[in-house]
Formats: sequence, C-alpha cells, structure tokens
Amino acid sequence: MPSLTQKELSAKFIEKLLMFNFSEEDSETLSSIFTENTLVGVSSHGVNRFAAFIELVKSSHINPKAIPIKTNAFNALEQWDAQQGAGPLNAIKMTSRAIELADEFGIGCVALKNSNHWMRPGYYAWEAANKGYVFICWTNTIPIMPPWGAKQPRTGNNPIVFGVPRDKGNIVLDIALSQFSYGKLANYRREGKELPYFGGYDEEGNLSKDAAQIYKTMRPLPIGYWKGAGLSLLLDLIATILSGGNSTKDLSKTNIDSAMSQVYIAIDPNKFSSKEILENSVNEILSYYLSAKNMQDEVVSYPGERIIKSREYNLKNGIQVDEIIWKRILELKVS
Amino acid sequence: MPSLTQKELSAKFIEKLLMFNFSEEDSETLSSIFTENTLVGVSSHGVNRFAAFIELVKSSHINPKAIPIKTNAFNALEQWDAQQGAGPLNAIKMTSRAIELADEFGIGCVALKNSNHWMRPGYYAWEAANKGYVFICWTNTIPIMPPWGAKQPRTGNNPIVFGVPRDKGNIVLDIALSQFSYGKLANYRREGKELPYFGGYDEEGNLSKDAAQIYKTMRPLPIGYWKGAGLSLLLDLIATILSGGNSTKDLSKTNIDSAMSQVYIAIDPNKFSSKEILENSVNEILSYYLSAKNMQDEVVSYPGERIIKSREYNLKNGIQVDEIIWKRILELKVS
Repeated sequence: MPSLTQKELSAKFIEKLLMFNFSEEDSETLSSIFTENTLVGVSSHGVNRFAAFIELVKSSHINPKAIPIKTNAFNALEQWDAQQGAGPLNAIKMTSRAIELADEFGIGCVALKNSNHWMRPGYYAWEAANKGYVFICWTNTIPIMPPWGAKQPRTGNNPIVFGVPRDKGNIVLDIALSQFSYGKLANYRREGKELPYFGGYDEEGNLSKDAAQIYKTMRPLPIGYWKGAGLSLLLDLIATILSGGNSTKDLSKTNIDSAMSQVYIAIDPNKFSSKEILENSVNEILSYYLSAKNMQDEVVSYPGERIIKSREYNLKNGIQVDEIIWKRILELKVS
Repeated sequence: MPSLTQKELSAKFIEKLLMFNFSEEDSETLSSIFTENTLVGVSSHGVNRFAAFIELVKSSHINPKAIPIKTNAFNALEQWDAQQGAGPLNAIKMTSRAIELADEFGIGCVALKNSNHWMRPGYYAWEAANKGYVFICWTNTIPIMPPWGAKQPRTGNNPIVFGVPRDKGNIVLDIALSQFSYGKLANYRREGKELPYFGGYDEEGNLSKDAAQIYKTMRPLPIGYWKGAGLSLLLDLIATILSGGNSTKDLSKTNIDSAMSQVYIAIDPNKFSSKEILENSVNEILSYYLSAKNMQDEVVSYPGERIIKSREYNLKNGIQVDEIIWKRILELKVS
C-alpha cells in the first residue's frame, strides 16, 4: 500500500486537476480540500473519491470553468447559481460569502443551486470556525432513504454540519441523516461483518444489521427513525425553496449528485462577546460533557476530536492509500 | 373524563392565569398557546402541563410580570434577556422579532437567555409559517441524556423545530433529540408496554425496550445514537454562546428547565420567489415524498400532518381531559 506525504498527495491532485482544465488557483484549492479530507481520516471524501470526481468532469456533470454567480440578494440573504462548477470550490466560496454577510449583518445566509457533491462538509465548518464563526450548512442529495413507514427511497441523506469555534480544536458535527452511509454499509458488506446497530430493513421488512440486505432493499434507517426521515424532508424543502434549485425529486431523474441545492449560514458570536468569554464558555460546556463516566470499552469524545487525532497520526506516519485507488488516479487522463 | 370545548378550556386557563398575576393580554396569549397545544393532540405541553406551569410561578421560577429586554443588537442578529418570564410568552415575542428582522434583512436571528420551558416549540414554527416564513428554533434543557459511550446524563434533549410554509398545511418538524421523551417513557411504563424500538440502556448496559429500566438508568438513546448526542452538544453550545445565557451545565445546578437559552431564526423565502412558485415547489417535493409505497400497517405522512387531523377531531368531538388533571387545575389557587 503506497504511503504518501501530504505534499506528494497534494501535488498529484494538482497535476491531474490542471490536466482536466481547472485553473491553477482552483486546482490548488481543490487539492487542499481533497488532501485535507484524506489527512483527517475521511478518505471516502478525499483520495478515494478523487477519480470519481474527475469522471464527473469527463461526463460534463462538473464544469471546471464554471464560476458561481449571484442571482438574488436581500441584505443578509443571498441566492447564488453554481452553474455546475466543482462542489468543493463552490462550497468554499459560499462559506466565505456567508462569513462576509455575517460580518456585515451579524448573520448571513447563502442559498446555492446547481452545485455538485461537496465532499466533506465538515471542511467548510472548520474553515468558518477557524475564523471565529458559528456555522451551519447542509445539502440535498439524490433519494437514498424511504420516508418513515415506506418501502421506496424518496428522500436524501442530506448531510448537515454544525460548527463552533474553539482555540484548542473546533467543535464540528458533520452528519448524514442515514444512520450508516452506503460507503460504511459497503465496507461492512465487503468484510462480511455485522453492523454494530440496526442500519436498515431486510427483504422481509425487519430491522437488520446485515449490510448486504440493506444494500438490496435500499432501505437504510434514518437517524432517529421517523425523526430523521422528517428532518431530511425539511432540509430538502428549505434548500430548494431558498435557492430556487433542484429538489431531491429533481435529482432523482439523473440519480447523480449533481446540480444540487445547498444552504450556508454563518453567525458571528464575536459581535456581542469577547473572544475570551466565548472560549471560556465553550470549554466549560465541553468539560462538563466530557466529565461523564464512560461505559466499559467506550471513550467519550466530542464531535471533531477524532479529526485532529487522525490528522496528527497521518502527518506523522504518512498517508496510506489503497493500491488500486492510487493506480486509478495515476492513470487518469483526458481521453 | 371531562369533555371540553375550546372556549371552555381557554376560559379556565385565562381565569387561573389572571389569578396568578399575568396581565389580561398575557393571559389570553398564554391561554391560546396551552389550548392550541391541547387541541392539536400535544396535551403533554398543553392542559396536562398547565398546573406544573403555575407551580413554577408559585415557586418564582417564572415571573408573570417579566418583560424580555434587548441586551445587544447588530443588524440581523440580536440578543435578548427574558428575565425569567413565561416561556411561551417569550417564545412568541422572539418569533415575532425574528420575523421583523427577516423582513428587514432577509434572515433574522434572536438569541434569548433566561427563558423558561416554551411548551410545544411547533407552535412558534406554525405561527411563523402561517405568515410565510421558513423558521428554525431550538432550546437547551437540563441534562437528560449521556454523551455517546457514557453512563451519566450530561446533555439535554434540546428540542429543535424546522418549519416551512404551505397553504394546505405547513410542514413543521418538532423533535427532541432523545428517541423517546421521558413523558413517552412514563406512558409505556405505566401501561407496562414494550417500546416499539430501543429507547435506551438497561442496568446491564444493554440496549433496551423497557421504559422502566431506562427511567432508572437515565440513559435514553439520542436520535441516531452518536449523531444525536453530538447534535445536542452543538445546539447547547450555539444557544449558550449566542445568548450569553445558561448552558445545560448551568441548568444542571437547579435541574429545573428555567432560565434556559434559546435561538430563533426566521428566513423570508418571499424575497426571491413569488408565493405561487414557492407553493408549487413545496407541493411538488411533498407529493414525491408521499408517493413512496407504504409498508404493511404503516401510513406515510409528513411532519405536521397529524397536527391538523388531531385539531379537526378535537374541535368536532370535544377535548377529553383527564379527570385528575382537570381537578388539579380547578383547585389551583394563590396560597
């Protein structure tokens, strides 16, 4: 298995992105995001996804030359059209724009249409939190979960992120609304292992820990059962009506996570409190949370903690990349 | 079991509220909220909770004369102090204020400290949605759930609401972050019935459907397991730092849902789209969602649908109130 440095991985991404018509600046930004996602342990939205990302460029779902344009604005609320540019590029731009609006109005909200898969949304929450902002963003997706009590997928797993700044490591929750992603299910299926908790329904309509069965039925469990199914509907509704873009229903026509709708909200907590007060308040809440006695064999942690540890580990030990995945990246060329 | 009309129930609430020093206007507002919550089938935050609400007035946790004051403002972001006034009065005022800010800035955010239990947050989302706004609000609470992997409660069930306007009935998701509320668990315990899904941990540390055991361990399951536990931490963090108010940790000192922190966000989708376009978009998404084939014995519904049906049913058939609960209300007096 190839072991790479951050620099080697990043350089390879840049080389390939330039080959596929991204500008130098955009190639560097995209490469940083794919590299960082890999470094923090989310290879599924980093190196493991890079070749699939390039395939979407090849099939014209992603336009490497597209630039997001503002279609509507009303003070702290804006509507943008990503024109099918690369999801991560759009996301980082819209995050910056939401922050500018928060600077001016205390809170800023950008609704974006026609974007593409943004890889790891936590990346954008970390960016915003690093600058001192509270951040919330979400996207709709193709239908992958049934409504509660139903058999057929009609709603997305619509990932949502919440971020809060903290000097010693931001607190960032990055969740999809299915209990287990299809990526996780695929891993369990490949390894023939049982899921640790019910992850969906089997063919008899019973709750199941069998990833292969859940893959077949396409009935993964929403988080909180009826609650997560409802939440996914609401997030799709809000993203679609605010952006004027495609809904999960619209995305079902191609069944590709392309031309999706997203919402970015930044809030500036520094308008009313000093940095010191905010930092103390966050640390006090966190200490209390982490003071709970843990169950045997369990470690109590906070959202975002694992990210920092993975990053440190990979920087020190090198980034392990699957041989087949790496070969596929090396062989990417304009055909 | 007494069967009451809307008018009778409302008049009794007003009579008692006046007795406990609420102004005429505030008594009418509070009565409308308690009555409406009962009508729509959420008696736990309506008639069944009324006597407990008055007890908090008696014990000075709720001040019937308090008026929320604005402590900080920066364009679309405001910070208010509820001064321990009645939760529902504060909530309806802050909802209106968030709407005014959304009128002026497209989006408005109000962070409130020192409020009290707001009963059913869906009420405020319905109010905002009736006026055409997208609405999100949440509150922190006393610690009632453990962090993931832990044994002791260190985080709230921090209810959150999302609302989207729709002529034929708003779409409003009103959820607490525990899979089952303690109220629901109490019902199952009383009836000796098994929960339909795992609801928490038993004394051996195993997932359990036994409400009595979960009551004992104080380890109800967060929605989505580790995901809901993380979300509850983030909602507490955001509400606390934006409002400058009490965190779940602070509330743990009294262990009473009083002087809590809340966030109200309103967004005006009409700034960019006509009412007709919005309505069509919402209905199209909803039709698609509801078009999924249902499982045997299950009905596919959307968040908020049940509310309308309960309302119609109770208006037609009268509101059934538990005899003991009604007697307790009738006997409330200033001691």
